[in-house]
Amino acid sequence: MKTLVFATNNPHKLEEIQNILSGKIRIRSLSEINCPEDIPETADTLEENALMKARFVKENYGYDCFADDTGLEVEALNDAPGVYSARYAGEARSFQANKEKLLKEMQGKDNRKARFRTVIALILNEKEYVFEGLVNGFITKEERGSEGFGYDPLFVPDGYEQTFAELGNDIKNTISHRALAGKKLATFLFTQ
Amino acid sequence: MKTLVFATNNPHKLEEIQNILSGKIRIRSLSEINCPEDIPETADTLEENALMKARFVKENYGYDCFADDTGLEVEALNDAPGVYSARYAGEARSFQANKEKLLKEMQGKDNRKARFRTVIALILNEKEYVFEGLVNGFITKEERGSEGFGYDPLFVPDGYEQTFAELGNDIKNTISHRALAGKKLATFLFTQ
Repeated sequence: MKTLVFATNNPHKLEEIQNILSGKIRIRSLSEINCPEDIPETADTLEENALMKARFVKENYGYDCFADDTGLEVEALNDAPGVYSARYAGEARSFQANKEKLLKEMQGKDNRKARFRTVIALILNEKEYVFEGLVNGFITKEERGSEGFGYDPLFVPDGYEQTFAELGNDIKNTISHRALAGKKLATFLFTQ
Repeated sequence: MKTLVFATNNPHKLEEIQNILSGKIRIRSLSEINCPEDIPETADTLEENALMKARFVKENYGYDCFADDTGLEVEALNDAPGVYSARYAGEARSFQANKEKLLKEMQGKDNRKARFRTVIALILNEKEYVFEGLVNGFITKEERGSEGFGYDPLFVPDGYEQTFAELGNDIKNTISHRALAGKKLATFLFTQ
């Protein structure tokens, strides 16, 4: 069976991708290859960040690998905060500060369209591939809901009336940008 | 029983600290509190990096928390690479590039003393504490051994003749800077 490293130690992410891959590919975590967690993630795009992580594993450990990165892209803000989603309000600031900054930037804006975007970068047999998962939606005018993290209380996905934070993790994980990118990865791997 | 979050998802680190804490304190990982792994780690010292991670968890999730950071400090290089150990040769470069840079910087240097240093930052009942684990040793003139990661093939701990990479993970983990910092944390927590 083909083995791939997934550049994470998050058991939720590992379980999610293992379910999507239906046990057809063996997944190893960072800790299983004795790789430290603090892989640099300092690029200017989601694609480059994901590639940076996958290349780090391939270059240092020799394993074929995939890695993910996710950001919230708001149309009226020229796709900000994007790759800087985790540090929108500054380094080491809280989710709360990030949400408050987003609401402030969006004050008076009629166009509230936004999307969550996950990129998965794969290195397989010396070649690099990128898979993208998108969930379109809009930014609310105030926070709603308590589940999830980050911008979840401010994002309503298309086709729903509730925010990700109101929908909860079970529904979010079913329809999420990361799940969609994972399914594209699986489809690609199954046809190799 | 007191519960603390350890800002990691690395199962080896979680198991190590759980053993050190002898089951007297319940440890939760980042994934158990549904916190993403990519907490900013962009400070200029090991202490500030560890504190940054612990504060992120405390501020966003409200839990008392501890976090660690580790660096290699070389006396003749004014304690470089230190907090920049993972990116000594530049962002997203390999362990190999880092080791080659270190060997180059150390060419002709008689003083080869170095130390691995782990800092654990703890936030408990609104107060911040820092615990330090040190392993003194020296930098070899060439790589030796294949276990471990990072600078392990270039570092011989005092009292041994082999590098960390030759000694292997079992011995390294027993005498390591991280284990020492963990023991200080445990001693502190047991007397609270």
